[in-house]
Amino acid sequence: MSLMGQMMHMPLLISSLLTHAARHNGDTEIVSKRVEGDMHRTNWAEVDVRSRKLAQALKRLGCEPGDRIGTLAWNGYRHLEIYYAVSGSQLVCHTINPRLFPQQVAWIANDAQDKVIFVDINIFPLVEKLAPSLPALKHVVLMAGRESMPRETALTNLLCYEDLIDAEDGQYEWPSFDENTAASLCYTSGTTGNPKGALYSHRSSVLHAYAAALPDAMNVSARDVVLPVVPMFHVNAWGLPYSAALIGAKLVFPGHHLDGASLYNLFEQEGVTFSAGVPTIWLGLLNHVKSNNLKFSTFKSTVIGGAACPPAMIRTFENDYGVEVVHAWGMTELSPLGTLGRLKTKHANMTKEERQKVLEKQGKSVFGVDMRIVDADGKVLPWDGKTSGDLEVRGHWVIDSYFNIDKSPLHDGWFPTGDVATIDEDGYMQITDRSKDVIKSGGEWISSIDLENVLMAHPAVHEAAAIAAFHPKWDERPLIVVVKKPGAEVTKEELIAFYKGKIPTWQTPDDVVFVDEIPHTATGKIYKLKLREQFKDHKLPTA
Amino acid sequence: MSLMGQMMHMPLLISSLLTHAARHNGDTEIVSKRVEGDMHRTNWAEVDVRSRKLAQALKRLGCEPGDRIGTLAWNGYRHLEIYYAVSGSQLVCHTINPRLFPQQVAWIANDAQDKVIFVDINIFPLVEKLAPSLPALKHVVLMAGRESMPRETALTNLLCYEDLIDAEDGQYEWPSFDENTAASLCYTSGTTGNPKGALYSHRSSVLHAYAAALPDAMNVSARDVVLPVVPMFHVNAWGLPYSAALIGAKLVFPGHHLDGASLYNLFEQEGVTFSAGVPTIWLGLLNHVKSNNLKFSTFKSTVIGGAACPPAMIRTFENDYGVEVVHAWGMTELSPLGTLGRLKTKHANMTKEERQKVLEKQGKSVFGVDMRIVDADGKVLPWDGKTSGDLEVRGHWVIDSYFNIDKSPLHDGWFPTGDVATIDEDGYMQITDRSKDVIKSGGEWISSIDLENVLMAHPAVHEAAAIAAFHPKWDERPLIVVVKKPGAEVTKEELIAFYKGKIPTWQTPDDVVFVDEIPHTATGKIYKLKLREQFKDHKLPTA
Repeated sequence: MSLMGQMMHMPLLISSLLTHAARHNGDTEIVSKRVEGDMHRTNWAEVDVRSRKLAQALKRLGCEPGDRIGTLAWNGYRHLEIYYAVSGSQLVCHTINPRLFPQQVAWIANDAQDKVIFVDINIFPLVEKLAPSLPALKHVVLMAGRESMPRETALTNLLCYEDLIDAEDGQYEWPSFDENTAASLCYTSGTTGNPKGALYSHRSSVLHAYAAALPDAMNVSARDVVLPVVPMFHVNAWGLPYSAALIGAKLVFPGHHLDGASLYNLFEQEGVTFSAGVPTIWLGLLNHVKSNNLKFSTFKSTVIGGAACPPAMIRTFENDYGVEVVHAWGMTELSPLGTLGRLKTKHANMTKEERQKVLEKQGKSVFGVDMRIVDADGKVLPWDGKTSGDLEVRGHWVIDSYFNIDKSPLHDGWFPTGDVATIDEDGYMQITDRSKDVIKSGGEWISSIDLENVLMAHPAVHEAAAIAAFHPKWDERPLIVVVKKPGAEVTKEELIAFYKGKIPTWQTPDDVVFVDEIPHTATGKIYKLKLREQFKDHKLPTA
Repeated sequence: MSLMGQMMHMPLLISSLLTHAARHNGDTEIVSKRVEGDMHRTNWAEVDVRSRKLAQALKRLGCEPGDRIGTLAWNGYRHLEIYYAVSGSQLVCHTINPRLFPQQVAWIANDAQDKVIFVDINIFPLVEKLAPSLPALKHVVLMAGRESMPRETALTNLLCYEDLIDAEDGQYEWPSFDENTAASLCYTSGTTGNPKGALYSHRSSVLHAYAAALPDAMNVSARDVVLPVVPMFHVNAWGLPYSAALIGAKLVFPGHHLDGASLYNLFEQEGVTFSAGVPTIWLGLLNHVKSNNLKFSTFKSTVIGGAACPPAMIRTFENDYGVEVVHAWGMTELSPLGTLGRLKTKHANMTKEERQKVLEKQGKSVFGVDMRIVDADGKVLPWDGKTSGDLEVRGHWVIDSYFNIDKSPLHDGWFPTGDVATIDEDGYMQITDRSKDVIKSGGEWISSIDLENVLMAHPAVHEAAAIAAFHPKWDERPLIVVVKKPGAEVTKEELIAFYKGKIPTWQTPDDVVFVDEIPHTATGKIYKLKLREQFKDHKLPTA
C-alpha cells in the first residue's frame, strides 16, 4: 500500500514549452536568414500564434493523431513553427536530411508513411522528383509565400505555407494527451543496412530540454542568443528549438548559409552568445575569422559534437578567440545528448594543460542518462580510464526500440551504442572507436582511430583508413589504406616505421596499401564497410 | 488513434538522483558542521551506501510503503541520508520545524501519524517531552553515535542512528515504483488555523530539481560548493539536497550554527560558491563581515527568498562583496520555487540602476510553473506592472490538495497563493501584499506593505504595521499601529504628514495608534490577524 503524492499532474508536452515561451518571453526575437536570401524577424508570441494556425490547417488537411508529417528544410522560423504545430497537435514531426541520396530520402519517407511533406524552396526540386514514388504522400507544402510558388509543377497536391496560415484564425487550444505519445521521428544515417527511425516522445523531449539547458550541459538562459548551426533535420538540432523555448532565449537561424563569412556576419549582427555544431562547420568559421583578422564580440561558448573535435580546434577557439568549447557526445538514439565535457570542483586547482586533457574527452553524463562499458560477453568493465569496452546507455531520452522494427536493440535493458570507449574514475568517457571498426587481434582490441590519427600527421598522407584484415593466427590484424597527397612519394615501409614509439609495438599495422580514393558515406564519413569488402581477400605479408 | 513514442520509460524517482551522484560524482564531498561541534566529511558514494543501509533498517523496524517518517533535525549529512533512505524506500520523509511551539510540533506529528521520528541530539528533549502525546509513534531514532546516547531517558523506544546503520550490509537495491508516489511531507507554518501538509511526489521533486539547477534559477553545477542555509525542515531546503545530487555538487551543511561568524568561517574553509536562505540570516553574515573588515574568497552567488529582500541588502552584497543576489519567491505549496529574479537579453543595454529595478521584483517563472493574477471575481488581470490582483499558480510541483484535507484549495485549476501581486509585460512578478492583509477601500486595494515601508524609514519609528479598520463609507481604511523607538517623540499628525508625496493621496492612512509592542508569529512575522482582532472596534476619526 503506497501513498500517492498530492501534486498537480500535467503531462510533459512539447506544446507547453511554446506556451511558456509565448507567455513569459513573448517579445524575445526569433531571427532567420531565409532561404529567400533576406532576413526575417519574429518572436515567441508570433511563433505561438502561427503554430496554432498551422495546427488548424493540418487538421483541415485531414491529418489525424499519430500521422507522420515530413520536413525537408533548413534551420528557419517556419521549420520551428512546424516543429510545434505538428507535435503540439499530436502529429509526429519527421525531419528528413535533404543531403541524403534521393533514393534514401524516398526510402525513409515511405518507411515513415509521411502524409504531408513541408519543403524549403531550394529543396523543392528533390520532392517534385520523388513525389511519384511516395504513395502515402497526400500533400506537399512549399515553405514560402505565394510570390515564391512555382508557376508550373508536376505536383497536383502542392500547397503554399503562408496561404495555409492565412486561412486560419488561430482560435486553437493545444490539446492535452499522454506524455508518452510520439512527438518526432528521426532516422539514423544508416551506414550499414537501411536507416532506422528513432521515435521520440513528448516526455523524453521535454526532459531532454531541461537537461540540455543545465549549467553542466549547454548552459543557456534567457540572456543567451542561440544560433543552432546543427541542422534541425539532425536529431532536432540537438534539442535546441525545445531548450530555447524552455529558457526563453533569442534564436538565430542561419538557413542554408553555413559558410564562414555568412555565419560570422550573423554572429556579429545578432549578438550570438552560444552555438552548437559539428567540427567541420567550425573549421570554416575559424578559417574565415583568422584570414580576415576578425574577433568575436559576443560569442562566448559552443558545444561541439557529432564527431570527435580535434584538440587543436578547442585550443584555437579558447586561446585565440576566448570562446569556451564544450566537447559533447551523443547519437540519434539518445535525442541526442549523452555526455558533455565540463569540469568538477576537484579540477579547480589543476594546471590549464591538465584541465585541457580532461576536456578533450567526450565528457560526463548529465542526470537522466547513465552509461557503462561491457566486454564481448556482456560483463561490466571497470571505470579506470584504460579499459575499453562496448559503450551502453540507458535513460529517459534513450530509445527502447526502433520505429517499424520488432526486434529489440537492447542488451540487458541497456542500449548498445556501437561505440567503444573508456570511462575514467571521475566518469569521463572517451570514445576510442566504433565497435564494428575496432581491430580484434588475438582477443585484444586495436583502435582504428588511433592508427589513423598517427598517419594523418605524416606529411605525405592525404587520408588514411585502418581496417581489420584476416590473419590465420590472430584472426584480425591492422591494414592501412592510404591516399597520398598529390605529388608526394612515400613507401609502405616508411609509413610502418612512422608508428614507432607512437603506439604499443604489437598494434603496429601489418600492411599498407595505396589507393587513389577512399570511399565515403553521404555524411562524409569513411565508408569502412565498403572498404572491408574491397579488401576481404587481402593477403597480409605476416600471414 | 495516437502513436506512442518508443523511448525507454523509467520513473522519475528521488533514489535515481542519489544513484547518479554516487556513480558519476562518488568522491565529491559532503561536509557537515555537526551538532556535536566537530566537522564531518563524507561523499556521495558513502551517502549512497549508508542511505541504503538505513533503508534496510527502516524495513527491519516494520516500516511499510507510505508510512510517514518524521525528522526534527538541522542541516547535516545524517539528515541527507534520511531524505534518501526514506523517500527512496517508498516511505514519506516528513520534516518538522523544531522552532515551532511544542504543541504545534505534536499536532503536526499526530496529523501525519509519524511512525518513526529521527531527532538531532540538541532537539531530543523536545521529543522526549512530546512522545507520550504521539500515539502513532513507534520509534525515536537519535541521530548520533552510541557515545552520544543518553544514559537515562523516559523513552522505551529510543534507537541509535549509527547502531541501526552498522547492523546492515547495504545489499539493497532501490525499488522502482510509480513516480507519482508520495516522497516527502512538509507543513505550512499556519498563521491562520492549523498547519496544512503539502505531500510532494517523486515526480514533482525530480522535475523541481531539474528546474532549480537551471542557469535562470539557482545556476548550480558540479563546479559549485553549495551551502544550504535554508533549513532542511523548510520545504526540503528549497530542494537543494536533490539538485545537488542531480548536478554532483559538493554540499556543505552548517548544522544549527547560523550566526555570522560560524557561517563566514565555513564559507571560507570549504570554498563555498553558492548559498540560499532568508534575509535575516544574511543580515547576520553581512554584519560579521563588515565589522571585521573581511572579504569572501569564493562566494559568488546567493538566492534570497522566504521574505522580500531589502534592496539595500542586494546592493551591499553586489557592490561591496561582488556576490550576485537572486531574489526569489516561492512557498511550501510550490516545492517551493515559483519565480526568480534573472535578467533577459533585452536588459543587456540597461543602466545598472534600471537593471536593479528589474531585479528588486520577485522575478519571472521558471519553466514548469505558470502564474496569473485575478480580481475578486476570478477575472484574469493584465500584465502591465501596475494592476495588482490575487496571485495564482499551477505547474508540475504545485500541490493539488492538502494532506488529510478533502476540500480542494484550487480555483479553476489554479492554486491561489494568498499573495497579491503585479506582473509586468516581461513576466516579472512583484508581491504587493498578502491578500488577507490588503486594505480594500471602496473597491480599490491599498498595499499594507507599501504603507509600512514608508513609515519604517521615519527616524522615530521602530516598527509599523498597517491594517484595515472599519469605515462606514469605504468599508475599510488604513490604520497604522506604531511602536516608537526608545526615547523618540512623534505625533500622529507628523506621521500622517510623512506620507505626503510618497504614496497616492487617497491611500494616506486615516489614523495612527501608538502601542508598546506589536505581536509576532513563531516565524517572526507581524501577527496581523491578532492585530486586526485587537483593533476591530477602533473608531477612525474619518468615520
